[in-house]
Amino acid sequence: MGNGIRIPFSFLLILVLFFHSTPQISATGYPINVWPKPTTFSWPEPRITLLSPNFTIFSPSNPYLNQVAKRYRNQFINEHYHPLVDPPVNLTGLPPLRSLDIKLIYGNPPRLACELYIHDEPLFPYRGVMLDTSRNFYGVTDLLRLIKAMSMYKLNVLHWHITDSHSFPLVLPSEPELAKKGAYGEEMMYTPEDITKVVEFGMEHGVRIMPEIDRPGHTASWAEAYPDIVTCTNMFWWPAGADLFNRLAHEPATGQLNPLTMNTYKVVKNVIKDVVSMFPDSFYHGGADEITPNCWKSNKTIQYFLAKNGTLSQLLEMFVNSTLPYIINQNRTVVYWEDVLLDPNVSVAASVLPQKNVILKTWNNGPNNTKKLVEAGYRVIVSSAEFYYLDCGHGGWAGNDSRYNQPPGTNLGNGSSWCAPFKTWQTIYNYDITYGLHIEEAKLVLGGEVVLWSKQADPAVMDPRIWPRASAMAETLWSGNRDSTGMKRYAEATDRLNEWRNRMVTRGIGAEPIQPLWCIRNPGMCNTIQPFKLS
Amino acid sequence: MGNGIRIPFSFLLILVLFFHSTPQISATGYPINVWPKPTTFSWPEPRITLLSPNFTIFSPSNPYLNQVAKRYRNQFINEHYHPLVDPPVNLTGLPPLRSLDIKLIYGNPPRLACELYIHDEPLFPYRGVMLDTSRNFYGVTDLLRLIKAMSMYKLNVLHWHITDSHSFPLVLPSEPELAKKGAYGEEMMYTPEDITKVVEFGMEHGVRIMPEIDRPGHTASWAEAYPDIVTCTNMFWWPAGADLFNRLAHEPATGQLNPLTMNTYKVVKNVIKDVVSMFPDSFYHGGADEITPNCWKSNKTIQYFLAKNGTLSQLLEMFVNSTLPYIINQNRTVVYWEDVLLDPNVSVAASVLPQKNVILKTWNNGPNNTKKLVEAGYRVIVSSAEFYYLDCGHGGWAGNDSRYNQPPGTNLGNGSSWCAPFKTWQTIYNYDITYGLHIEEAKLVLGGEVVLWSKQADPAVMDPRIWPRASAMAETLWSGNRDSTGMKRYAEATDRLNEWRNRMVTRGIGAEPIQPLWCIRNPGMCNTIQPFKLS
Repeated sequence: MGNGIRIPFSFLLILVLFFHSTPQISATGYPINVWPKPTTFSWPEPRITLLSPNFTIFSPSNPYLNQVAKRYRNQFINEHYHPLVDPPVNLTGLPPLRSLDIKLIYGNPPRLACELYIHDEPLFPYRGVMLDTSRNFYGVTDLLRLIKAMSMYKLNVLHWHITDSHSFPLVLPSEPELAKKGAYGEEMMYTPEDITKVVEFGMEHGVRIMPEIDRPGHTASWAEAYPDIVTCTNMFWWPAGADLFNRLAHEPATGQLNPLTMNTYKVVKNVIKDVVSMFPDSFYHGGADEITPNCWKSNKTIQYFLAKNGTLSQLLEMFVNSTLPYIINQNRTVVYWEDVLLDPNVSVAASVLPQKNVILKTWNNGPNNTKKLVEAGYRVIVSSAEFYYLDCGHGGWAGNDSRYNQPPGTNLGNGSSWCAPFKTWQTIYNYDITYGLHIEEAKLVLGGEVVLWSKQADPAVMDPRIWPRASAMAETLWSGNRDSTGMKRYAEATDRLNEWRNRMVTRGIGAEPIQPLWCIRNPGMCNTIQPFKLS
Repeated sequence: MGNGIRIPFSFLLILVLFFHSTPQISATGYPINVWPKPTTFSWPEPRITLLSPNFTIFSPSNPYLNQVAKRYRNQFINEHYHPLVDPPVNLTGLPPLRSLDIKLIYGNPPRLACELYIHDEPLFPYRGVMLDTSRNFYGVTDLLRLIKAMSMYKLNVLHWHITDSHSFPLVLPSEPELAKKGAYGEEMMYTPEDITKVVEFGMEHGVRIMPEIDRPGHTASWAEAYPDIVTCTNMFWWPAGADLFNRLAHEPATGQLNPLTMNTYKVVKNVIKDVVSMFPDSFYHGGADEITPNCWKSNKTIQYFLAKNGTLSQLLEMFVNSTLPYIINQNRTVVYWEDVLLDPNVSVAASVLPQKNVILKTWNNGPNNTKKLVEAGYRVIVSSAEFYYLDCGHGGWAGNDSRYNQPPGTNLGNGSSWCAPFKTWQTIYNYDITYGLHIEEAKLVLGGEVVLWSKQADPAVMDPRIWPRASAMAETLWSGNRDSTGMKRYAEATDRLNEWRNRMVTRGIGAEPIQPLWCIRNPGMCNTIQPFKLS
């Protein structure tokens, strides 16, 4: 569905810019200003006309597409966005534009008002944003605002990391106790009605909602309702003297589902059944990241299993074999974090993960793990922490952190968070997610996703953490980060992104500014010519 | 004035916490939760009583203090703040608190409701926040919101960096053309009425407003009205092939006042006269940072002066000698950036800067420059970029920046801004601004100031950029960063700051979260015990 309405989106987005925004000089010499930049775009005789007050959009009959048409018509008529820099193109005596027929766009090249020609299509079908609503809670209005902003940039998948060890905010009809006892509070839950609202709003904005219920790790919050199915509950996450490998969790709170307890599968299958019924998307994210060995090892039953020459990887395999087919049988493609295959301590064999039904999400080692996964024949979604993790660089979340008890002059490690430094929009814009892959391997890369873990984020900072950095990725995944001559689009992209950041703010999205206003008012004057030395 | 009402502030702040906030276990074993922590605080028998609906605050008659009393009374009665964690202390049968007499606080130790004893005073008299309103504009409501938040933490000086090369937003009766032509636009100016509003609001909140009109550098915006007094106007800031030293400005836009043009002094003195009349504070910030040699060298008259064996430092000395006495004569203590004395290329002799009238603001080389300045006998305000610059780590502002055109795996330098990485609240909390000084030298350190340059900040991100990081500095400058045993207050500070960050959000200040909610709900469980290796 996302793809189904993506094309009218791109078409309408061009049009709204055409009438309301700041043309910049494009590689082909014609003034345009659109983000993400279309594949090809030309405007032989730059001319602007007015929109008729009776302007109408005709669209094929489809409930979501009709909503899109309605929303964009209102935006065209009522937004009155004033660009940071006035367009150099003058108004012509052409008659006002009376109507727009969305069937038009199926022409090739499609003909638009005032001889505006575009041909457009995305380089990658999956262009996502992940939000973690377990470490800190976000209201439905925050999720809708995020979806609205995503649609501005043709980002088409919201990966909703709903639950984790910290809280279980999702109300499930078959397992109501999970949220009742595992959520942060009654006012911090998502009801089935909330989910419907988010999913429908997503459909109307061309954004698919991919749910993730992380497990068997990251499940401490499940223990509030079902202590019997969780191991190492309520333990201190990093006992004094223990080394990294012997922590009980990668971060607090501690807790992993016990693959040897039959009740585990009863609960997990109820969860899957409910989630599948609430989320129509064909992708289901099953988590499976960061199994912490000592958490399972702390459990008596598991100790017995290991004593009989069982291994932790066998435990994970048992869990996957008991849950993956159940999800697949409900016509879902299953997404897992790469750990399920690549974790050095606890992982399963590829034979357990059919390439046909499983997609893997990479986050470690930059391009290297992407390469490993496609070589293993898997379709991949790229969320490299080195480039796409939006939470990095704002410091550690741990209390009593002795790293900070240092004399001045001590290097505090890039901002002292594990994935520091902060990923700038330029870092994101310049990452090529198929770097180092052969053409055939590259075809297995479905796309990319920026990720916001909420260790140090919540609704107060959601907008500036995500925008405009997600916009930077949106263009690289749509039409790339290079112009027709193969050069990176730095200077030109900076001006366009500046304009779009300002447009976001006028639309109520609190995106970060990227430059002083003076820079866009004085095009090119804030550029740098010679290469900088890396500092 | 700020100091005059600082004490009732601390007193009232204690009280509001006492009634509405989350006690934490203090070093002395009694539940308290206040930020910044008072010098000493004890509560022999933790008991809580109600506030009478007729609760009244009596204060000595002073227009500002009366405002404070009124504001806090309303806050006590109407805020209804609900702590993240409920207080462990139960309500007693004691009679409701009927009134509060601010004269009380002059007792030693002061006796409060329910046997709450405090003795409180700041370690440093100057506790500031700097905001740059030239690179990007902030509305008066933003400034008032900042002042309001500062008063929550006993931060008592707003250093207002009003003008710079990018824009000149200050409307001056004697020099109206400067704003008329140099501001970003009519809606992006501060009128004399706006200034009065900010100054008065500051007085009512115990926050002094110290104005800065930066010059002779950072004055490109002056050229819009007076091209004749500015050198190297409208030039590209970093010509291709030029090395760092040969740039025309440290950043765009280019322009420095010409010390050899008499009209320069006519304009500057009008500016000083007007600013002094608008800002009653006894400190006047004269700027004087980052003189760029090539900007002056590009001017014919200056070339002639240099050809006659004149030096750039003589030019700066000429400028200082022609302006400093004029400011001093208006009963102002003059604050300059350290560059005026320490810049390796263009600086003046100490003899030109009387220690009695001049305070220097340090920002380079951490504790080393602080040491140099106090050794030279100057009072110092510490704004070390290494610890107190709030804009660092979010990437470079320059367009067409080739640093980013790198293959994956390239180290992009801590987030690629000159002062990267991002300064975390812990980094700020742990900085000792008198590090390496003898007791006598330390007495010359007036205090510290966190600094927000608006290269990549504007009203959309002002709150999360400043808070809660400025709160971290506020406590270190008020009562320090160590408990009575000399240990750093990490764990305990994290929980208190968490609570206060939440309180800020409920008061409409969009501060950054520092942890998942789970952490404060589970005290100590998100701490770390063993020392981390610096990563």
